[in-house]
Amino acid sequence: MYFKDTYMSSETLQKLNWRYATKKFDATRSLSAEKIHILKEAFNLTATSYGLQPLKMVAIQNKELQQQLVPFTMKQQQVADASHVLVLCVETEMTSNFIETYFNKVASVRNTPKAILKPFETFLKDSFAEKEAEEINQWMEKQAYIALGNLLTVCALEQIDACPIEGFEPEKYDTFLQLKEKNLHSVLVLAVGHRAEDDMFADLKKVRRGVGEVVIEM
Amino acid sequence: MYFKDTYMSSETLQKLNWRYATKKFDATRSLSAEKIHILKEAFNLTATSYGLQPLKMVAIQNKELQQQLVPFTMKQQQVADASHVLVLCVETEMTSNFIETYFNKVASVRNTPKAILKPFETFLKDSFAEKEAEEINQWMEKQAYIALGNLLTVCALEQIDACPIEGFEPEKYDTFLQLKEKNLHSVLVLAVGHRAEDDMFADLKKVRRGVGEVVIEM
Repeated sequence: MYFKDTYMSSETLQKLNWRYATKKFDATRSLSAEKIHILKEAFNLTATSYGLQPLKMVAIQNKELQQQLVPFTMKQQQVADASHVLVLCVETEMTSNFIETYFNKVASVRNTPKAILKPFETFLKDSFAEKEAEEINQWMEKQAYIALGNLLTVCALEQIDACPIEGFEPEKYDTFLQLKEKNLHSVLVLAVGHRAEDDMFADLKKVRRGVGEVVIEM
Repeated sequence: MYFKDTYMSSETLQKLNWRYATKKFDATRSLSAEKIHILKEAFNLTATSYGLQPLKMVAIQNKELQQQLVPFTMKQQQVADASHVLVLCVETEMTSNFIETYFNKVASVRNTPKAILKPFETFLKDSFAEKEAEEINQWMEKQAYIALGNLLTVCALEQIDACPIEGFEPEKYDTFLQLKEKNLHSVLVLAVGHRAEDDMFADLKKVRRGVGEVVIEM
């Protein structure tokens, strides 16, 4: 059958099938500098709305620090055992200055006269100024989820094991990692490394609703 | 320099660099059945919180329908010219029945006794029952953004041009595509296809804050 063959022959799908939410990492193994480099660059390349990138990623590789995160992470041992813990953060607010810095960067990178960019810059500043802080925060947090989706797929491609974590206490992370002082707020945690050989979750069949159920053609 | 070489040699990063938000599609070209198959399967393989997949994707390949979406999409012509328009949707509510269906699926796919799954199933049902509808909606919408991040990266890998769109009127999409009747609410639009040869945005330099600015090492 045509689709069956295609399915098997798509390297991308094979890799996406390979990934799973790693429940137990091999604490003795670290990701190579090259793999970490790819994850950082991929994070920076994530598409965000308007290209604003209201995001930063804290990359932790420090077993002592990682161990201290466990109680703030619903006791999930993954953050202690992973090679690196990536914490995806958003800006605490979207300031006029942040937007201006972005447009200055566009002007310099693309050699675009500021006058051409000005109307859109003004529109964006006005548009954010009219919104409630919580609405802006939700919008920024959604951008962090784009980064998560990107990073999980990049991990799959690079055969990096990963566990995405929503179950943690953002305020405790913010305090412990001194994120507020950096005008950041933690949104998502991604533990990355190598699966432990005895992680029983690695062999469980993937559960998905299936294309027939989740895709509607029109 | 080591990192410079690594950067150039990483196929993943080269592909992520290739992608851009396509502003003008070639309306005469369609994506192959194989590429569309990959996008649908990749959507279904997207990681979601608890594995619940509170998402569906409407895949539109109908030029007449696509043209009618333009006024609900801030007049962005991409939805008319793209090969396909993908509309990422969330469930209108997270029902006890939805959660039960998921656990029944886990039990059947993994051959796990229902009794083993029951405590977690009950925990999840109770946990959602305690939350406000808007909080659940925001959480579901965030899951749609993971799918967007995944799909954008898969598009880059598969050399599919894409334009992610937040700038549309979800309520008008919901009515026009009769999504409410399917218990769905539109969250994101992704136009996919082939870039037009004269899309001037294809040649613009990518603007990014850079790893030095967006990554903090600890």
